[in-house]
Amino acid sequence: MATLSSLLRRGLLGRPVASHDVAEPRMSRWQALPVTSSNALSSLAYAPDEIVLTLVAAGTAALALGPLVGWGVVVVMLLIVASFRAAVAAVPQGGIYQMARTKLGPRAGVVASAALLLDFVFTAAVSVAAFAHFAAALLPGLGLESRVLVACAALVGVLLASLRSARLSRWALPVLVSAFVALTALLVAAGLWQEGQGLLGRAATSGWTQEGAGIGGTVGAVATALLALRAFSAGSVLLTGVEVPVSSSSAMARPAVATVRWVLAVMALTLGALTLGVMHLAQRTGVVVALDPARLRDAAGRPVAEADTPAPVIAQLADTVFGPGSVLSLATIAATALLLLFAARSAFRSFPALASRLAEDGYLPRQLRVRGDRLVHTWGVLALGAAALALVLLFRAQTALLVQLYVIGVLLAFTLAQAGMLRLWRRRLAQTPGARARAAVRLRLTITAVAWVVTALAGVVVLVTRFAQGAWVALLAIVLGSLVMGRIHRHYEDVGRELAPDPEDDARALPSRVHVVVVVSTLNRPALRALAYARATRPSSLEAVVVDADRAVTEDVIDAWSRAGLPVPLTVVAAPYRDTVVPLVRHLRERRRRSPRDLTMVFIPEYVVRPGWRTLMHNRTATRQKRRLQREAGVMIGSVPWQIHEGQGDGDRSTTV
Amino acid sequence: MATLSSLLRRGLLGRPVASHDVAEPRMSRWQALPVTSSNALSSLAYAPDEIVLTLVAAGTAALALGPLVGWGVVVVMLLIVASFRAAVAAVPQGGIYQMARTKLGPRAGVVASAALLLDFVFTAAVSVAAFAHFAAALLPGLGLESRVLVACAALVGVLLASLRSARLSRWALPVLVSAFVALTALLVAAGLWQEGQGLLGRAATSGWTQEGAGIGGTVGAVATALLALRAFSAGSVLLTGVEVPVSSSSAMARPAVATVRWVLAVMALTLGALTLGVMHLAQRTGVVVALDPARLRDAAGRPVAEADTPAPVIAQLADTVFGPGSVLSLATIAATALLLLFAARSAFRSFPALASRLAEDGYLPRQLRVRGDRLVHTWGVLALGAAALALVLLFRAQTALLVQLYVIGVLLAFTLAQAGMLRLWRRRLAQTPGARARAAVRLRLTITAVAWVVTALAGVVVLVTRFAQGAWVALLAIVLGSLVMGRIHRHYEDVGRELAPDPEDDARALPSRVHVVVVVSTLNRPALRALAYARATRPSSLEAVVVDADRAVTEDVIDAWSRAGLPVPLTVVAAPYRDTVVPLVRHLRERRRRSPRDLTMVFIPEYVVRPGWRTLMHNRTATRQKRRLQREAGVMIGSVPWQIHEGQGDGDRSTTV
Repeated sequence: MATLSSLLRRGLLGRPVASHDVAEPRMSRWQALPVTSSNALSSLAYAPDEIVLTLVAAGTAALALGPLVGWGVVVVMLLIVASFRAAVAAVPQGGIYQMARTKLGPRAGVVASAALLLDFVFTAAVSVAAFAHFAAALLPGLGLESRVLVACAALVGVLLASLRSARLSRWALPVLVSAFVALTALLVAAGLWQEGQGLLGRAATSGWTQEGAGIGGTVGAVATALLALRAFSAGSVLLTGVEVPVSSSSAMARPAVATVRWVLAVMALTLGALTLGVMHLAQRTGVVVALDPARLRDAAGRPVAEADTPAPVIAQLADTVFGPGSVLSLATIAATALLLLFAARSAFRSFPALASRLAEDGYLPRQLRVRGDRLVHTWGVLALGAAALALVLLFRAQTALLVQLYVIGVLLAFTLAQAGMLRLWRRRLAQTPGARARAAVRLRLTITAVAWVVTALAGVVVLVTRFAQGAWVALLAIVLGSLVMGRIHRHYEDVGRELAPDPEDDARALPSRVHVVVVVSTLNRPALRALAYARATRPSSLEAVVVDADRAVTEDVIDAWSRAGLPVPLTVVAAPYRDTVVPLVRHLRERRRRSPRDLTMVFIPEYVVRPGWRTLMHNRTATRQKRRLQREAGVMIGSVPWQIHEGQGDGDRSTTV
Repeated sequence: MATLSSLLRRGLLGRPVASHDVAEPRMSRWQALPVTSSNALSSLAYAPDEIVLTLVAAGTAALALGPLVGWGVVVVMLLIVASFRAAVAAVPQGGIYQMARTKLGPRAGVVASAALLLDFVFTAAVSVAAFAHFAAALLPGLGLESRVLVACAALVGVLLASLRSARLSRWALPVLVSAFVALTALLVAAGLWQEGQGLLGRAATSGWTQEGAGIGGTVGAVATALLALRAFSAGSVLLTGVEVPVSSSSAMARPAVATVRWVLAVMALTLGALTLGVMHLAQRTGVVVALDPARLRDAAGRPVAEADTPAPVIAQLADTVFGPGSVLSLATIAATALLLLFAARSAFRSFPALASRLAEDGYLPRQLRVRGDRLVHTWGVLALGAAALALVLLFRAQTALLVQLYVIGVLLAFTLAQAGMLRLWRRRLAQTPGARARAAVRLRLTITAVAWVVTALAGVVVLVTRFAQGAWVALLAIVLGSLVMGRIHRHYEDVGRELAPDPEDDARALPSRVHVVVVVSTLNRPALRALAYARATRPSSLEAVVVDADRAVTEDVIDAWSRAGLPVPLTVVAAPYRDTVVPLVRHLRERRRRSPRDLTMVFIPEYVVRPGWRTLMHNRTATRQKRRLQREAGVMIGSVPWQIHEGQGDGDRSTTV
């Protein structure tokens, strides 16, 4: 049994890695850039879609707002990144959690980390859902239902790669990210050139409308502003992942602060430029996407067949600019799809790392700190996988639905981190003497303040415009998560306080006398051995106990006992209700009441049958007695196992060690 | 937690019963008759239906064969009962299992008991399925699908009553059986009188036909004979349960043999007479039932609506003779339905009793011998309940489908029992001197021989005519069950041989030296107490071991150790793969290799957190270490528990004892 499962484990996860193999070289700028920015860059695969589909729901004319909303999102993103660049100088080791925790206190840290953990779950779920969407653009035969399957398969694949701690990404990711950036940049450039030449075509979905969409014609200024805000809140999913370079600073080449700041700047400018270009071209080519494809009508007003469900915005643009089905177009779509998988993989790095950090601080169960065979935080990876899988199944892999719950957590975490930084810079300003140094701090303070206000406002916008569509669920999850983490922390503190050694402690006191009880159910060899071992410990007093659950059996034991001539008194404990555990406990308590300062040691003979399923054929009396006795004060349990071989030799035993 | 579950348990199952309350008074003739014959009598509720539906499938004209087939079944039943009456004189304590085991050897006993166990499962399943069928006759709104639910609910109810070991039946059953016998006898008598007066009506289903049924007109003699045999094999389900009085002999008033023989005779004659009467009236009133109601056509050739699905034969007869919906008719149907529940209850007595007996002889897992709070063999009851529930769900509570698998087991068990008896009587005949005594033995030998031949023939008929419809499944189950029971027996024999004490035994030898190892993971109070306890046992040598799975933690332990000034050497065991179990085992083996005659005792400090779900927040290192060490030879495990209270006091602990 053990051999089969260990083979399977070895095959799926690879050979165990020793702890001293853990040290990885620090990443240079050009290595760090693709690794830490893949998460942020991948939002380009779905953020434009969110903006467009929000506008489409208000009517085709509203699409003109697209580039403006794009600018709004990009400006907020740049502000946040600027504040992070300022922050790394002050909290070089830290991610969001540390920023909030050290500057605002543990409670804010817990809330920020709950929000971040939820975020990573959504990153994984949204990335594989969007991957399935892009896969459907490559393979048009893929129906909406099979997209759920594709997303789940992708998630399981990423999960296994994470458990293996696959090293592939070290080489593949830089190539892939470069390809993605190059192709989308080429897409934007080619599109702009075509536009200049008057050659830019219309997207296949141009002129499509959504049934029941808002007024297509003129709308009031207030309604337009509200619509723009709603589109902005959807598009702010672009912000997700920009914190990854900050929290990865410990893996970057020294000086880490400079590396992080460089990576942040390059990443933000690239992402910003690409987003603006994509939003501009999307508006010019008339790209349409929709939350519910069944409600779309094509340019002639006919319902759209399921096979013609609109592809994601980038895929549609690639088809329009490079030509449908052209090599460049297919390459762009494929690169985006692969990048999404790496974004999911990145969540599988960030979540276990943060969870392990939180477990270290006592806010999450300790198992999350355990590193498995491959040095991966196994439980963290599995927890993330299970949660993301649940989300994918629950929302049938529909990216747009998932995004509505996604954004609020990011904004909450960013706002908290920035509030912490704001406090830090204000204190720094008060402590800094020289005018020039003060000016530098004041600049950082200003950037952070602006970013904080903008992030908080964006958060309020999302909360107000998206509350009913799911933001409340995310908020509730964050609140509940924070409460649970608080409870866990209290539990560990209580336990830690009780277990801490204490010079006055009675735990160090040697018990005056040791009273040994051997529990006998039949007088077989395990029982004889337990008795011999018990005698070998030379106790102050020794008794054997038989629990009288079955009169005939008990009499057999008494007979065998007197025939064996054992120099140990045998006590019979009555068990009128045939329970073998409670009468034993009563007997021990009775004894303890008479001499409370003695230590009682209970020896329980057991035989161990292998393979494990054979234990089904034996009463588990010993196991139940041991489990119950663990709850008795002043009782120590000695288990004397007897290994049964049944003549097969112990070949299987040597293989499992 | 424990309190809630124990309250629930108390509520459902009642207060525990002490072992000395077990003695029940022996049953007099008139008490034993209803208790032990309810199983056999209840077959009257479905055996006629099986005959009729087999005939209907061959065409309406074939219904004329009904009474003849009824005679065949009744004669076989009387022969079997006659042989049992002879047998009880020779094997007074025994049921089928003992008859086959003592006279034919353990292997035949195992096969017979596997067949019987399967039978009891089918008794329970068929009885509740038939109960649902009768319930549908009382409540016509009950669709075919809800019958599955009704059957399952009835099964669960009977299961709970069995776990409670409900005493209700002592009073209810005699009344119910009397009512059932009186009402069916009245039904038969009134029907015969109506027939004599020319007043007997036609059943509501009279003239109905089954689509695709065989030739309705003249058929060849061979085809007729085959059809009769097929109908006979279906009807032989009447035989089930006639062995119950024999296996209950130990509960009957002395002289038990006379009581059993009286009960057998009265039961067989009543059942025989009622069956013949019912079969006769069913033919005269033209009752039709079908396996698949969807294929039925009414007298005008129209398909039958689901609401008009034919009721069971007895229910249709009651409606025809007493008038539809009359009080007498409803009473007959209700009495039959209730009797079926008691038949299921009877299976819940027989199965656990036989399983416990088999467990005692080492053919089934020992847990089946354990008597629960209410003196019931809990595991046997649960096993039967689960198996019967699976059958009911698998066959959608369709009695006719279940019966096809049911009969073969009964006939196999009866044939084996009679073969054993045959051998007994032949030996007796050889040993008996006087002529008169020899004549008595010879009579018994003859009866048994005839019964054996007839039962074996019936078994062959069932096997041949029903093989494809499911008899093969039942046969396979019996063969597999017998093999598994054989394997279990071998396992227990091997274990028993290995565990049996032996005068030359090294199990009694006191180990020369005791080496104690205390496993430390952090130097907290549980570890200090474990150390103190270990020192209190005054071992020959003592060492503490820390498994170095995490360098930082290990160094903390080493520091704390030297600061605490503990007089025990601390060994650091390397664990490069972060596994805390295997390196510990390696260390112990190393030590054992150096001094193989020493006893090693490993002390493991543990803290016990309650309620149990809180353990989710703690690494289960101690548990895993203990489990693995149990497989090491020469190692004894001492568990030193530390109960954590977290300030709630231990109020919950006192309630659970």
